[in-house]
Amino acid sequence: MKYPNGVRPARQAVNTANKIFGNRGMSLEEDINITNQYYLNNNKAVIHKKPTPIQIVNVHYPQRSAAVITEAYFKQASTTDYNGLYHGRYIDFEAKETKNKTSFPLANIHDHQVQHMKSIRQHEGISFLIIRFSIYDETYFMDMDLLLDYWNDKNNGGRKSIPYKDIKKQCHLIPFHYQARVNYLKVVDKLYFQDGGMSDGRK
Amino acid sequence: MKYPNGVRPARQAVNTANKIFGNRGMSLEEDINITNQYYLNNNKAVIHKKPTPIQIVNVHYPQRSAAVITEAYFKQASTTDYNGLYHGRYIDFEAKETKNKTSFPLANIHDHQVQHMKSIRQHEGISFLIIRFSIYDETYFMDMDLLLDYWNDKNNGGRKSIPYKDIKKQCHLIPFHYQARVNYLKVVDKLYFQDGGMSDGRK
Repeated sequence: MKYPNGVRPARQAVNTANKIFGNRGMSLEEDINITNQYYLNNNKAVIHKKPTPIQIVNVHYPQRSAAVITEAYFKQASTTDYNGLYHGRYIDFEAKETKNKTSFPLANIHDHQVQHMKSIRQHEGISFLIIRFSIYDETYFMDMDLLLDYWNDKNNGGRKSIPYKDIKKQCHLIPFHYQARVNYLKVVDKLYFQDGGMSDGRK
Repeated sequence: MKYPNGVRPARQAVNTANKIFGNRGMSLEEDINITNQYYLNNNKAVIHKKPTPIQIVNVHYPQRSAAVITEAYFKQASTTDYNGLYHGRYIDFEAKETKNKTSFPLANIHDHQVQHMKSIRQHEGISFLIIRFSIYDETYFMDMDLLLDYWNDKNNGGRKSIPYKDIKKQCHLIPFHYQARVNYLKVVDKLYFQDGGMSDGRK
């Protein structure tokens, strides 16, 4: 494919046509990364995606050039994907996208991630799950407590997924903002900072 | 090498002979990982090392077995190596080991890491640097403010390293504990939690 000046435009530019359709065409991860960059640039919060955990087996060190990893494997993450700092509070979350129309399958979450989120809450951090139903282009904020209810229920022989209609009713729809495409701090403000994020009062 | 029961003992066990010499034989990273695991097991704090950032170029998907990364490169970290949560406060630090006898070279730290640490402080997080002089088997806690003084001085044409004698005088020696080998939360307690870590009062 040829581009003017030989430079491939950034993904955002390529997706210009999609903008009127909101998030369509961007993955949840891309949207969250753009959001976090916006928060960082505007000095609102410092939240990053953790690198993908990888088990390195072989590294080749060629002369006069960078080390090349020639054999490595993906490892399962022991924590959540995103963490950081907002108004003095520790923020920690996992983000999952589903193509399912009627429910969010709990198989998307691992037990050690739930354990991690429980620890976060116990140590007074803010922990939640971001769920996108890509079919509906809707992204929800599910607070840790609610996730835990469904998780415990599943472990006691209950449903292995959370119905879409329950999520619609019980979770917070995350507003779309042109630069903060998954503007999840809006929901954090509402739930944890009563006066809109300017205080650091505990919930 | 043969082991009883055919099981290779864990690194800690191999190093039994080193224990009387304190940290000798263990890298700073290993010591901090053991410390963080101890904090986690004892429900004291939730602090993890971030995975090494890697740029994946090629992945091979063999039939009936796990995906193999066949070409990848190390990327420079844009943040610090460790972060987490302690008594409701966000903790963020970088750890560096030097074999130098007289000073800590500031080339060990990257500008974007310092910028990240500044953001952390601005958003009311706790940020610091752990420095080990491996020759002396001494590990120091350098609070962000002090690091910044030296960093600014360097950027204004000053010293490119921090003298060991200044670190000895101005920083906090991190106590060694058998299970929390780099017991840095002791220093965090002293600096940020007046009554020994049980309150979440701000400094």
